[in-house]
Amino acid sequence: MAVYTHLSAENLSGLIAHYDVGELVSAKGIAEGVSNSNWLLETTGPDAARVDSPHGSARYILTMYERRIKIGDLPFFLGLLDHLSAASLPVPRTIHDRSGAAFRMVGNKAVALIEFLPGVSVDRPTPAQAHSVGKALAGMHLASADFAGTRENDLRPSDWQALLGQYTDSQLAQIDADLPEFIEAHLPRLMAAWPDDLPQAIIHADLFPDNVLMRGNAVSGLIDFYFACKDMAAYDLAVTHAAWCFDRTGEHFDAAVGLALLEGYAAVRPLSAAERDALPILAQGAAMRFVATRAADWIDTPGDALVTRKDPMEFARRLTFYAEHGAQAFTI
Amino acid sequence: MAVYTHLSAENLSGLIAHYDVGELVSAKGIAEGVSNSNWLLETTGPDAARVDSPHGSARYILTMYERRIKIGDLPFFLGLLDHLSAASLPVPRTIHDRSGAAFRMVGNKAVALIEFLPGVSVDRPTPAQAHSVGKALAGMHLASADFAGTRENDLRPSDWQALLGQYTDSQLAQIDADLPEFIEAHLPRLMAAWPDDLPQAIIHADLFPDNVLMRGNAVSGLIDFYFACKDMAAYDLAVTHAAWCFDRTGEHFDAAVGLALLEGYAAVRPLSAAERDALPILAQGAAMRFVATRAADWIDTPGDALVTRKDPMEFARRLTFYAEHGAQAFTI
Repeated sequence: MAVYTHLSAENLSGLIAHYDVGELVSAKGIAEGVSNSNWLLETTGPDAARVDSPHGSARYILTMYERRIKIGDLPFFLGLLDHLSAASLPVPRTIHDRSGAAFRMVGNKAVALIEFLPGVSVDRPTPAQAHSVGKALAGMHLASADFAGTRENDLRPSDWQALLGQYTDSQLAQIDADLPEFIEAHLPRLMAAWPDDLPQAIIHADLFPDNVLMRGNAVSGLIDFYFACKDMAAYDLAVTHAAWCFDRTGEHFDAAVGLALLEGYAAVRPLSAAERDALPILAQGAAMRFVATRAADWIDTPGDALVTRKDPMEFARRLTFYAEHGAQAFTI
Repeated sequence: MAVYTHLSAENLSGLIAHYDVGELVSAKGIAEGVSNSNWLLETTGPDAARVDSPHGSARYILTMYERRIKIGDLPFFLGLLDHLSAASLPVPRTIHDRSGAAFRMVGNKAVALIEFLPGVSVDRPTPAQAHSVGKALAGMHLASADFAGTRENDLRPSDWQALLGQYTDSQLAQIDADLPEFIEAHLPRLMAAWPDDLPQAIIHADLFPDNVLMRGNAVSGLIDFYFACKDMAAYDLAVTHAAWCFDRTGEHFDAAVGLALLEGYAAVRPLSAAERDALPILAQGAAMRFVATRAADWIDTPGDALVTRKDPMEFARRLTFYAEHGAQAFTI
């Protein structure tokens, strides 16, 4: 959470002059996004010059892509926002510049101007909120069917294996003494059992509560699509389940939140029997995906860095839960 | 620049329920404030419940005081905002809770809700912008005359001496080989020449461009009053001059910006002959104040920390400029 690059008011004003959004009124660097810098901009709005709307005002998120995200993937990510927004999903649209471009370069970094959506991210979702999130996720899967873009998932089971394979057991054991054995006990088993014939969609793949904006029990925004890719729709539901239905540590599963999420999803996009049957394995895989990326981040981040490292064991606990109680957890 | 504390949407909603500002619509942690955490909040507004204003919306800055600022000083700082705002200066007012309190405690930390003002901070002020800032600063000095609160300046020449006296010459020389000699050459001289009979006011004492919000050439906000105190009005003008009239490194003085700042100030609050005569010394002192605090921060911050250290020598160069050209720079 940081703003990695300084953009002066003069830089920002020069940048938005390429867009039909009016003049800059306010700019605040915001503490969101791990691999991006973000600013909340207020402008006089696209209609500012109109006599009947002299006091217009509009808000946007300006994102600068600092690392991790490949510029070649931006047309997919930004086009997906436009596609989902046009399908009336609560997804911010990309503001295009006057030449029609979805992103521009500032120095050697890409920036995009994105619609601001109201709402707040909840820390402890209620069942009613999880129900809304399930519906929104299913709506996204359905609406993505006619989206022309595609992107491969670069965090599939073989990628988890490659990621974890970079480290020795003794490096992994420094995170937690049980971690090497845990990976050995579960990863080969999950890779062997991983389904490959379930219905696919464009999936969000990272729909944690901080990537959902809510107003009361309603979803007002799905944001941060920078892991979106084509993969099994039910896997996305499993990722969302792992992200929404436990306390942070992964020690406590909230069955009511879990059931509401599944029911909300199925109300919009009914699950096939094969998808239902696969959910326990998919959820264990979802947990392993975060064990793998968190373990890599942990080892690559010095312990005395100011960045807070996220504990991989929080997702190891979820995996254990799904291995033991998955069938039950996914019975609607 | 960071958000040091996590406040959940649930925490924030609970907090603002104590204020007459409506319901929470949006909350973004913002990258402002070195010793505070700040959030930009949007609410449905105080009139949200009124039938004739169903779509009200209002914005506020929520500040959590993390360190440095003493809770005992908050009534002064927050009362000053209210006083200056009531005097029609572009200063954000404090939003008081329903019991009338200017701040509340969240755990062991104080928080205040402050009016949001539009505008952006410029990096390279123009003469027209500096003129506006001079006028706003003078207006603040005049309006503070009937403010009941007061606070001693804890960064006077003897404080600079005490701060620098904590470090050995070899520690200071690690910042810059010339720094120990520079301090020895100037600090005793400035302390001996420091005036004590100039008109006093409540001064901002830290009015850098990032503490001023502008819309075009107009000042839309003076913010971050957490160094405000009672001291010589002309010293505040000298601090502002040192902050606005040089490039970042202190190598290049912009005479047109300097002249515009002085003229803007004097147009609202004419300077006495004694104040004019003292400006070269006061400006050297202003520069030494930032040499002292930046040197202390430099030595106290590890070189490999993620926090960017500010180079004290940028203000040593300003001091040298004022020592050599101060009389000229302050001739209107």
